[in-house]
Amino acid sequence: MKAVFHHSNDDSDLHERVVNNVANLLDDDTVDVEAVALVANSGGLALLTTDSPQRETVEALQERGVSFRQCRNTIEGKGLTEDDLIDGVELVSSGVGELARLQDEGYAYLKP
Amino acid sequence: MKAVFHHSNDDSDLHERVVNNVANLLDDDTVDVEAVALVANSGGLALLTTDSPQRETVEALQERGVSFRQCRNTIEGKGLTEDDLIDGVELVSSGVGELARLQDEGYAYLKP
Amino acid sequence: MKAVFHHSNDDSDLHERVVNNVANLLDDDTVDVEAVALVANSGGLALLTTDSPQRETVEALQERGVSFRQCRNTIEGKGLTEDDLIDGVELVSSGVGELARLQDEGYAYLKP
Repeated sequence: MKAVFHHSNDDSDLHERVVNNVANLLDDDTVDVEAVALVANSGGLALLTTDSPQRETVEALQERGVSFRQCRNTIEGKGLTEDDLIDGVELVSSGVGELARLQDEGYAYLKP
Repeated sequence: MKAVFHHSNDDSDLHERVVNNVANLLDDDTVDVEAVALVANSGGLALLTTDSPQRETVEALQERGVSFRQCRNTIEGKGLTEDDLIDGVELVSSGVGELARLQDEGYAYLKP
Repeated sequence: MKAVFHHSNDDSDLHERVVNNVANLLDDDTVDVEAVALVANSGGLALLTTDSPQRETVEALQERGVSFRQCRNTIEGKGLTEDDLIDGVELVSSGVGELARLQDEGYAYLKP
């Protein structure tokens, strides 16, 4: 089973909820998880910048195999660059395009 | 056709919207609905406790065949137990795992 | 690839985000987009009425082939009619039924 989380709001409670949700999926022994991705766009960007309040948690999830992907439109709109992102976060052409592509590849969609 | 509703916010307007959306799906004669589930996690728990403002509506939807499922991580995090839930609500190992599993089984995802 | 956007909140920032997300998908050269629809219900109705703050953007997206669909339950609940909608917006029996149907037809689901 494959799943992609969509994160699009800059809200501290929601940042924490999203990473907890990802961890809960990885920890769920009843689910055979092949791949987990998180795609951030709009306000979700704040979860993946170097000054993210959840930086350590994001890095710990990367070590567990979670792939974090950031919408290029959003980051360019904010005047930021790839250097402002946590190491290992992948820039994607558009967040919505990536979310459509992953669902087309069989990923389940989750919006915490 | 099968559909799963994801409910994750404790907001009185949204509680009402979610149950109305479920009823609208059941009432839509143009759609052949085989199965409808609602998975609650995070703040969505408040819809499914015995003191829920929507308790009667939830029970009426159960009688129409809707399956309500509550994330175990959320309820344990709040120090509540299955006894605090409306009768018939099923505890699932994780809300996100259940949502991924149901989509893998062909359920459409709906976030009201 | 096919994608449906679900819009259900009357929030000016979100109205703008939703139409920007739709444009970003159309503009993403890495994605082969066959069909894009937007289904509005609940507060999302305000995006598709004749006095919508995004009316011109909606019309421009219609010209690019995006199909806009409005939940009949919502519009009847507000005492409005099809005449109150931007030309070309299609009324559907229920927003959630349409979203389930489109996912059943292979559309990816996106909630901006």
